[in-house]
Order: sequence, then C-alpha cells, then structure tokens
Amino acid sequence: MTLEALQSALAEYFAPWVQALNLQVEDACASQVRLRLPVTPQLTRVGDMLCGQAMMAAADTAMVLALMQHLGEFRPMTTVQLGGQFMRPLAGQDALVLATVLRAGKSLAFGEIDITGANDGKSVYRAQTTYALI
Amino acid sequence: MTLEALQSALAEYFAPWVQALNLQVEDACASQVRLRLPVTPQLTRVGDMLCGQAMMAAADTAMVLALMQHLGEFRPMTTVQLGGQFMRPLAGQDALVLATVLRAGKSLAFGEIDITGANDGKSVYRAQTTYALI
Amino acid sequence: MTLEALQSALAEYFAPWVQALNLQVEDACASQVRLRLPVTPQLTRVGDMLCGQAMMAAADTAMVLALMQHLGEFRPMTTVQLGGQFMRPLAGQDALVLATVLRAGKSLAFGEIDITGANDGKSVYRAQTTYALI
Amino acid sequence: MTLEALQSALAEYFAPWVQALNLQVEDACASQVRLRLPVTPQLTRVGDMLCGQAMMAAADTAMVLALMQHLGEFRPMTTVQLGGQFMRPLAGQDALVLATVLRAGKSLAFGEIDITGANDGKSVYRAQTTYALI
Repeated sequence: MTLEALQSALAEYFAPWVQALNLQVEDACASQVRLRLPVTPQLTRVGDMLCGQAMMAAADTAMVLALMQHLGEFRPMTTVQLGGQFMRPLAGQDALVLATVLRAGKSLAFGEIDITGANDGKSVYRAQTTYALI
Repeated sequence: MTLEALQSALAEYFAPWVQALNLQVEDACASQVRLRLPVTPQLTRVGDMLCGQAMMAAADTAMVLALMQHLGEFRPMTTVQLGGQFMRPLAGQDALVLATVLRAGKSLAFGEIDITGANDGKSVYRAQTTYALI
Repeated sequence: MTLEALQSALAEYFAPWVQALNLQVEDACASQVRLRLPVTPQLTRVGDMLCGQAMMAAADTAMVLALMQHLGEFRPMTTVQLGGQFMRPLAGQDALVLATVLRAGKSLAFGEIDITGANDGKSVYRAQTTYALI
Repeated sequence: MTLEALQSALAEYFAPWVQALNLQVEDACASQVRLRLPVTPQLTRVGDMLCGQAMMAAADTAMVLALMQHLGEFRPMTTVQLGGQFMRPLAGQDALVLATVLRAGKSLAFGEIDITGANDGKSVYRAQTTYALI
C-alpha cells in the first residue's frame, strides 16, 4: 500500500483520541511499517518524558497498519493481547514506532513493535501482540 | 488517601493526553482503586466500540493511583511492563477500571487491572503489570 | 468431568517430561480446576525454591484441564500466548495451581492461573493465557 | 565466558527437572547465547510436536545464561515476568533457543528469546522477559 493510503487509514479507522497522537507514516515494506510519534507537551509528564500510555497506544495502532500493509488492504481485526516492556525513558526527541508482522495465518496474526528514540536510536519500549482477523 | 486527593493526582502527574480520558475516581480501599472511564465518541471507533488504546492507557493510569493508595502517598515510579487480554468489545456504556496491587516490595510492585462494562459488569480487558518504585 | 477423567487426561495428552511434574487434580468446578504440584528436589534449585520453569509448565497444563472442564470434553487446542509474573519465591511447601477460564468463544479462550503456597496460601505466580480451539 | 563455563552452569544452578531438557550451549557472544534443545519423545505430545511447556522452560533458562554472558559471571537473579507467543508448531527437528539481553541496568534486566526450528529456521515461539538482579 502507499504511504498515503496508510496515513489515510489513521484518520478513517481510529478513534479521535488516538488520532490526537498525530502519528506520521514514514515507511512501509512487505510486513513492516515505521511511524513517527511527535513528542509534544500533550504526551509528556514530569521530566518531559513521553508517557507510557502513548507508547502502548502507538504500538497497537502501528500494528494495525502493519497488518494492512501485510494483507494489502484493510480487514476487520481486533487486538487479542498486547504486552510490552518499558526499558528506559524517552525525552527530548520524537519516537519512531516500528511494527513488524511475524506471522499472519487465516485467523490469527502475531507481531512485534519496537519504539526507539528518533535521534539516539535507543530502544525504549518493545511489545508483542496477537490479533484476530475477523 | 481521599478520593479527592487521588482525583487531584490525575491532574498533577499525568500527561494532558492522558487527562483527556477524563477518568473519575469512584472508590478506593487498602490496595485497590476503581475509576470510571466515560465512553464518549472521542474514544470509540467503528461500531461505537471503546478503543483498546484507551483501555490500556486507563489500566496503566489506574495502577499508579492504586499504588499511591497502597503506599499512602505519591512516590516516583515507572511501569516496567504491562500486558493484557482483550476478551470482548465494550459499547453503549461506560467502563469501570478496577486496579489492584497484588504485592509491593521495596523496589518492585505487581498489580492486576480488570476493566468491565459499567452496566453489564462483563469483563472486557484484563491486564497484569509490574512497576519499579524509585 | 470427574476428577478421575481429568487426572487421566494428564497421562494421555501431555509429554512425559510434563507428566514428571506429577500434578494431582484436587478439585474442579464449572470453569476452574485446582491442581497440586508436589514440590520435590527434582523441581528446586539453590535455596530449595520451586523453579519458575515448573510454575509456567504447571500453569499451562492446568489451563488445558480447565478448558476441558469448561467444554465438558477434550478438544484439540493450542496455547497462543502465556505470560505471567513471579511475585515471590515458594519453598518448603507444595504449590496449588488454580486455573480459571475467563471466557471461551468459538475459536479463542482466555484464562488466568494463580499459583499459591499450599500451606501459607500466598500467591507466588499469576499468569494470563490465550488458547486457540481448533 | 567460555561455552564450557556456560554449559557447566546448566548443571550447577538449575533444578534436575530443568536439566532433563538436556540443553546444549552452542554459541555465545556479548549479550546473546544460543542453545540447542534436542527434541525427544520425552518432550513431545500428540503429533510429535514439541510441547509449549518445554519452550517456556528453555526460554527462561537460556535468558539466565545470556545474562551470565552479559555480566561476565553468575549473579543471583530472579525472573520477574516472562510472556511469549506460540506462533506455529515445531516437529521433526531440534529447536534452537536464542536469548538476547536487550538492556541490563543495576537492578533490572530485559531480554528477548526466539525459538526456531533447527532445520527450517522458522520462528515458533518468541518471548519477552524481565529479570531482577539481586
């Protein structure tokens, strides 16, 4: 899919509160998408650190786009589970959200998400997730 | 802690984007807090279903308050990991977020979160989480 | 199902290495089973503590029996994901493994497992798991 | 550390039931170890498939060795949480267990484990884990 089509999907399939993250589709290949999460004061708490809630929301959202990219179209799907580790704080830079489809079967899909600092490239959050394709 | 003190903590320690969830502290006991998540069009996607991103964010936020309640005060802390299962959709009603501290040691705390429909009481999302107390 | 039928299932459907845990079915109700894990030197490491590997294996095994109990029969199924938290060590006593089916749909089932000390009743490991019913 | 030292650690620090997995240390670099899990009838169930319980146990065990390798010595540590996804069955071949330390701080360490078929290289189980260094 084109980056424009994926970017449009963000406005079409997600709640306004999720759209407020202002995620930007930067790249997409076979089974992977990379989004930029602009780190603004809306998303930070004490110490200018990006809040974990935004990391989890960005991870879940990015995986939907990665699955669209993998499948070549939007299909109804639902998150079955998502779990992740917060390895270090992120401050003073945007976040990059790399979502990868590890395996997509007929009814279940598995993926991983890695969130890194846009400037220093350090991994701050890594998650695993399972989706049900409906 | 009083419900007012916990409610104030929501405005003091969380990012504006998290505050936009408009969580309401409804109850608190020894190691547990119950919040109401008003389900508005801002938080829903196709089918008027509450988006999973809001469930995860509410779960993480509620656990911080449960730890404050357990400790009797705010202490710096950070989420180490959070994982949860999305068991069914929630639509047409508010969500209740029950966060329970399972064990809090000197440096690590463990908790669970159960999100249910405010009207039908059905469990829609259940999560486990680990926090580091700093 | 009878406790005898569930106990027999342990010998029929599990690998010999899992059977070596010597799990004992102690109770079963609508959507729940309780197993006893005898803590022997085979399962402990330094400090006579029950090894975490045995806790995870017991949790996964118990959930299969809980699903059999819930469904009223054995059905082919596979673990989709399992994650859990190790909250404190267990030593000097057997472990009780309580597995509960939270929701079982047509193709996916969700459950939780709580492992406690048989003598002190303290929770040592709690897990969440998703199964695919085939 | 040498492969021999890591192999010896398997006999020294783990419960006999875990040693019965007969894990073989095949490689080790800065923050990573690779073990072979011989797939024998002791570890398989119906259909000659490697049981998930053995995958989880091998993953947890491999991460301890990866942390030893990262730290340059054995240090007391405990698993805080471990969660993973079972993506496809493994049959008719050994399993390779690749454990990687993602970040090790003073008190917490984060890692990921990938289990693949030794012949076809396909990923069958991927896990994330957090350890507390004592």
